[in-house]
Amino acid sequence: MQLLTDDEITAALGSLPDWERAGDSITRTAELADFRAAMLYVNAVAYLAEQAGHHPDILIQWNKVTLTLSTHSAGGLTAADIALAGQINSLP
Amino acid sequence: MQLLTDDEITAALGSLPDWERAGDSITRTAELADFRAAMLYVNAVAYLAEQAGHHPDILIQWNKVTLTLSTHSAGGLTAADIALAGQINSLP
Repeated sequence: MQLLTDDEITAALGSLPDWERAGDSITRTAELADFRAAMLYVNAVAYLAEQAGHHPDILIQWNKVTLTLSTHSAGGLTAADIALAGQINSLP
Repeated sequence: MQLLTDDEITAALGSLPDWERAGDSITRTAELADFRAAMLYVNAVAYLAEQAGHHPDILIQWNKVTLTLSTHSAGGLTAADIALAGQINSLP
């Protein structure tokens, strides 16, 4: 997996509402109705992650879910992160 | 919910292997076989949390799950945290 350039990352984030860059990662915090709804969301994200073979860090704080994506094996952001972020954003 | 004293917290942690104190919280990191196993573990913890009406912060990093318990409404550690930590430790 090739690292994306800063320009490529900026361009990709233009099509990924709610995601922002944090150094070598991109992150998104989703706010759900309550803990149960947050867990259902996390399980949907987990399914997408397993299908992609690529896994975000997931932090659950009652109704808030913070996802952090990076390609650790490449040392930064790659197309795999952008693709999975797009699939996560496609969740209703 | 009444805050526990430092002595009470120290005594409680003596019966809670794998948990350690981090300021106003207690925390435990469990290492599972892989992401799927970590998600199953998180769902078991989530069930216990819902039953208790008390919810840890949960951080999933592929096969590692870090749980952080505190009683935010009380501003620190209470019997609710110790009880839920005990239930989580009872998971096989």
